[in-house]
Amino acid sequence: MAVNQRVQAAIQELHSDGPAAASAGSLATASTAAAGSPSAAPSAGEAQSAPAGRAKIEKMSAEVKDDNPYSRLMALQRMGIVKDYEKIREKRVAIVGVGGVGSVAAEMLTRCGVGSLLLYDYDKVELANMNRLFFRPEQSGMTKTEAAKQTLVNINPDVDIEAFHFNISTLKGFDEFVKTITGPDGASRCDLILSCVDNYEARMSINQACLELGQTWMESGVSEDAVSGHIQVVRPGKTACFECVPPLVVASGIDEKTLKREGVCAASLPTTMGMVAGMLIQNSLKYLLRFGTVTPYLGYSALKDFFPTMQIHPNPQCNNPLCMQRQAEYRRKVELEGPSDAEDEPEEDSGPLHEDNEWNIEVEGDDEEGAAGEGAAAGPAAPAAPAAAALPEGIEYSLPTAEKVDAAKLEAEGVVTTEGETVDDLAAQLAALSQ
Amino acid sequence: MAVNQRVQAAIQELHSDGPAAASAGSLATASTAAAGSPSAAPSAGEAQSAPAGRAKIEKMSAEVKDDNPYSRLMALQRMGIVKDYEKIREKRVAIVGVGGVGSVAAEMLTRCGVGSLLLYDYDKVELANMNRLFFRPEQSGMTKTEAAKQTLVNINPDVDIEAFHFNISTLKGFDEFVKTITGPDGASRCDLILSCVDNYEARMSINQACLELGQTWMESGVSEDAVSGHIQVVRPGKTACFECVPPLVVASGIDEKTLKREGVCAASLPTTMGMVAGMLIQNSLKYLLRFGTVTPYLGYSALKDFFPTMQIHPNPQCNNPLCMQRQAEYRRKVELEGPSDAEDEPEEDSGPLHEDNEWNIEVEGDDEEGAAGEGAAAGPAAPAAPAAAALPEGIEYSLPTAEKVDAAKLEAEGVVTTEGETVDDLAAQLAALSQ
Repeated sequence: MAVNQRVQAAIQELHSDGPAAASAGSLATASTAAAGSPSAAPSAGEAQSAPAGRAKIEKMSAEVKDDNPYSRLMALQRMGIVKDYEKIREKRVAIVGVGGVGSVAAEMLTRCGVGSLLLYDYDKVELANMNRLFFRPEQSGMTKTEAAKQTLVNINPDVDIEAFHFNISTLKGFDEFVKTITGPDGASRCDLILSCVDNYEARMSINQACLELGQTWMESGVSEDAVSGHIQVVRPGKTACFECVPPLVVASGIDEKTLKREGVCAASLPTTMGMVAGMLIQNSLKYLLRFGTVTPYLGYSALKDFFPTMQIHPNPQCNNPLCMQRQAEYRRKVELEGPSDAEDEPEEDSGPLHEDNEWNIEVEGDDEEGAAGEGAAAGPAAPAAPAAAALPEGIEYSLPTAEKVDAAKLEAEGVVTTEGETVDDLAAQLAALSQ
Repeated sequence: MAVNQRVQAAIQELHSDGPAAASAGSLATASTAAAGSPSAAPSAGEAQSAPAGRAKIEKMSAEVKDDNPYSRLMALQRMGIVKDYEKIREKRVAIVGVGGVGSVAAEMLTRCGVGSLLLYDYDKVELANMNRLFFRPEQSGMTKTEAAKQTLVNINPDVDIEAFHFNISTLKGFDEFVKTITGPDGASRCDLILSCVDNYEARMSINQACLELGQTWMESGVSEDAVSGHIQVVRPGKTACFECVPPLVVASGIDEKTLKREGVCAASLPTTMGMVAGMLIQNSLKYLLRFGTVTPYLGYSALKDFFPTMQIHPNPQCNNPLCMQRQAEYRRKVELEGPSDAEDEPEEDSGPLHEDNEWNIEVEGDDEEGAAGEGAAAGPAAPAAPAAAALPEGIEYSLPTAEKVDAAKLEAEGVVTTEGETVDDLAAQLAALSQ
């Protein structure tokens, strides 16, 4: 039998073990000399089969040795960047959507040694995905979650990986999603949820689940023309939720939520996808390990290498009653305890919005000009910039296309930009979609 | 035999085939149903053994099919981003350094379907590299170039990959490097050279080779503390060469050129490395396929998500005589033909520098304040901002540490920042190193 066929057969066999046998635990056998781990001895038998990776490592070491996969990460402590890097092993992150952004995000967290990963996707790997990082041609036909798990467990057997192959936007899928991210105490068992999906419905589902659990999540998106993208942090009650404002995208691109329309093939690039994954996981590491500044919204426009940032405050007239409830809870909390997480949001200002700045968006980095709400007393009368000025250069509203509106047509009619369209119109359309 | 062992044996066997058998041509056998290629039929025999990838594809197709790996790239044409995407198949790119940045850069170009790649590295894969993307634990011990080639040929057999395992900074290695990037006509056979190395000597070698051949290259770097990085375009005669100005790095980090000092383990993150690779290859795609704006210098500071840009003009007192010659040639060319490549450098201004702005650095995006040289007539008396103002926020000079100066000590003495150190001092130190 040719080597080619032998490798394929072996991969087939591994794959056919199925989700149960392929848990992170059973796959972790030793093959390469690894940094002194007590669990390095491989067990015999088919059930212990694994790709040729490395053995599990009990405790992260800062020792500078060629065979220590954590030396360069633990060095972050010595360099004064992170106080306690090993805390990453206690973190559980859910990634919804294991495509061009989600798969690379999962690999980055895996290589960083995150404690556990929950992966959600209902799609299969295709050769048409090969223009982005991560998946390999021989994984075509596998589910994205199982293919990802196969690769990730091999890269770092210390990470506990749970793969869920279903659509979180169906009624049943949503219930299952909420169930799998909820712990026995009824609270979220995740430290962070990352949205790496390509459609509006899935983002709304994640938003709803996270509002229910009071769970912080980060949204990401890449434009259909492949040359812009963004990430956004959503903290229930504290920042805008996904329903508070119309989705914001960078520059001329419309968001990838239109990607799945039949017969339409959106463009994509491994560069843009990799950049957005990098932005997302860098922000996640800063959030999880408490270093640097967590950026509330970061855009990326590839054609000009332009990276706009801003803050988006919650909308006190949000259509989602759960968001309204979380906002009230957060206001109460701030009254009692003062603003929390001051280190990642240095400019704490949650004053309700002025009628001229309906979405309460605050452009960052405009200190000299006195950005919206900056330095103003928190309260209903806090001054704010007009809506037109509130969006930073290169950022525009994007309409959800859940109702199969043709994006090109919308753009032709000027709907994608805010020109010729009031924010009230956008709000009405958003409300109609939310029903 | 357990599956684990079988996979290992198969990989071993593949690896032991060696560089000769593992050429892009012989590895391209079919296993997955691929988009109608005439070469899809696998040949029998061990010599044709390959990882289970896909067959070669004769011509890029824009057809929207699940098994077309180029559909999402060719869509860039339909979206109006790139005029002729297929031109990428005519491009040859050399990547020097296949580490945290170079390996990801190579994978991005491979997935984009670049014509051919030359990979240079003298290092081996270690488990200590596993905190960055690309390499897998089972590749430990392989040379980085062969491991990279193994992975890349499997991902995209259409890319012609040449792997060179030697140090370009030795006398013999430098000659070999120049020889392998030179065509039969004595000119460069590359369209672009990417520096993804971690030391000063290798950057100086690339600079020298590219000055000799008049070859455009892009420099990249990641700081030792893992939280900042940069890319820079070097066009012989037109922009500063690597010897024209002291190396510039972003924010507080010192460049990774100190990484190789014995006993010192620099920190690194897959996020930062991935971001810099994304910035580098996005800029490369814009340069190779002529779309968007090629960014002359782009920095990245992860802690605050800050991305400074600038232009660096050549130094008319550069220590490198070849650079002086290329500058003279470029001036002559501009006199005869006018400035070329106007589309990627909208603000053409190559006026020699003023004594107050010795390095002739131009901060970008400061239109309102009248950036250095902007709108001024090209000529010896072109006004320029003082040196202190010429560096954008967060950018600082970094001293090469080729002479084994301890970086921490330098930093403690304030040498890394420009405070308490004049540019003349830096120039003198640089000159001393260049001898």
